Amino acid sequence: MRNLTPEQFREQVRNGVFTGPTAGVCDGFVQANLAILPKEDAFEFLLFCQRNPKSCPLIDVTDLGSPVPRASAPTADLRTDLPKYRVYRNGELTDEPTDLNEYWTEDMVAFLIGCSFTFEEALIRNGIPMRHHEEGVNVPMYRTSFDTIPAGKFSGPMVVSMRPMGAGDVVRAVQVTSRFPSVHGAPVHIGNPEEIGIRNLASPDFGDAVPVREGETPVFWACGVTPQSVAMHTKPSLMITHAPGHMFVTDLKSEQLGVI
Amino acid sequence: MRNLTPEQFREQVRNGVFTGPTAGVCDGFVQANLAILPKEDAFEFLLFCQRNPKSCPLIDVTDLGSPVPRASAPTADLRTDLPKYRVYRNGELTDEPTDLNEYWTEDMVAFLIGCSFTFEEALIRNGIPMRHHEEGVNVPMYRTSFDTIPAGKFSGPMVVSMRPMGAGDVVRAVQVTSRFPSVHGAPVHIGNPEEIGIRNLASPDFGDAVPVREGETPVFWACGVTPQSVAMHTKPSLMITHAPGHMFVTDLKSEQLGVI
Repeated sequence: MRNLTPEQFREQVRNGVFTGPTAGVCDGFVQANLAILPKEDAFEFLLFCQRNPKSCPLIDVTDLGSPVPRASAPTADLRTDLPKYRVYRNGELTDEPTDLNEYWTEDMVAFLIGCSFTFEEALIRNGIPMRHHEEGVNVPMYRTSFDTIPAGKFSGPMVVSMRPMGAGDVVRAVQVTSRFPSVHGAPVHIGNPEEIGIRNLASPDFGDAVPVREGETPVFWACGVTPQSVAMHTKPSLMITHAPGHMFVTDLKSEQLGVI
Repeated sequence: MRNLTPEQFREQVRNGVFTGPTAGVCDGFVQANLAILPKEDAFEFLLFCQRNPKSCPLIDVTDLGSPVPRASAPTADLRTDLPKYRVYRNGELTDEPTDLNEYWTEDMVAFLIGCSFTFEEALIRNGIPMRHHEEGVNVPMYRTSFDTIPAGKFSGPMVVSMRPMGAGDVVRAVQVTSRFPSVHGAPVHIGNPEEIGIRNLASPDFGDAVPVREGETPVFWACGVTPQSVAMHTKPSLMITHAPGHMFVTDLKSEQLGVI
């Protein structure tokens, strides 16, 4: 799966051949979080993303009623090309389908939001190891005391992901991820978790805890779980997302997102 | 005016003391283009900006009905704090008021879009002279063969501004402006104007021609005139903008917009 083109990979997903999580597929291509909302909520959600680009970096937004992400994957269909979806009605998870054929309507707008896979690749290429990969678990994520900037009904705390590293790697991690503002960009905090309202690194709000070793510094990035967490909180009549880890694979190469 | 704080400057504008163009005021602070649209057009225009960040970099978008740009100048009022406005009905210029007290309604959304003053400051600090400043004229702007990515009714060609420079300055100009994606960022083209559909540098579509000297390279940046030009083309029932050169001065320092 690592060496398939995104188009080949999405065809396998569409035909039901591939049904698992997408970590590691289509090496070097950008994967994205999915959020689908009805038109009535789309303007405010778009505004929310515009105001909170660190947590909600938009990769692509579809035309009203179109399931085609024209800027990031013009041959794709967002109704069928993710391995698994989640359907929420009034904030409650009601279904986990493998396609959206029975849910999609002409009234929907789909948002593709940058995900941390892209900047993790860049960190690894720079020799900075990812503890959660070594441990074979999900990255730990925490609600913080940073408030997002509200837009209409959408508001709530920023969620961050945490990666511990040796003090010698911290400066390089800032430099490397600053190149990629459309996949969360530079860290939002370095060091003491209490400064941003995190009481205990061993108890993440989402994902899994990882060990932070003696002398290591925890580094925190804005996380793509933020918009989902915020949207759920508002209990929209209908919201559809990717299932955790089951992302959309775009035609964009990660390096194309580097601003310099 | 150069040494006023933005708050002091906006007070002078609000009280009718200052009525001129804003070039050079409030040294080091970000100035922005203004576009105001009724709610019915706001979602598509926001989507258009999201899809065309080089020409339409959003600095701030107000809440529906609020004239306060909370992220960029929370004490400001966009109805009174620009020296001059333009009101267009169905694409026709109908008024050039000095405040919007008789036009503003609860149905409006205001968009603040990055402007080239910020990256020009950065170029000048790096020793790269601006020909149009030397000549005391407006920067030359041209319609190009680059299409913007449409969003609903909004579509049309990208407009660019052109600055000629010695070949030795071109690489540095790319580096310096790449730091500032929210004020148009890196150039969109370097060199031969015909490659991007410009027949004659001496006949700009907007602004004034400037001499390009022997051995100099023309360098082209996406221009904030693009969204106005595109919006006018669609003839929205009502659109309000700043009058050319009469920008909004935010509380943001130019350096704060640097992504690295």
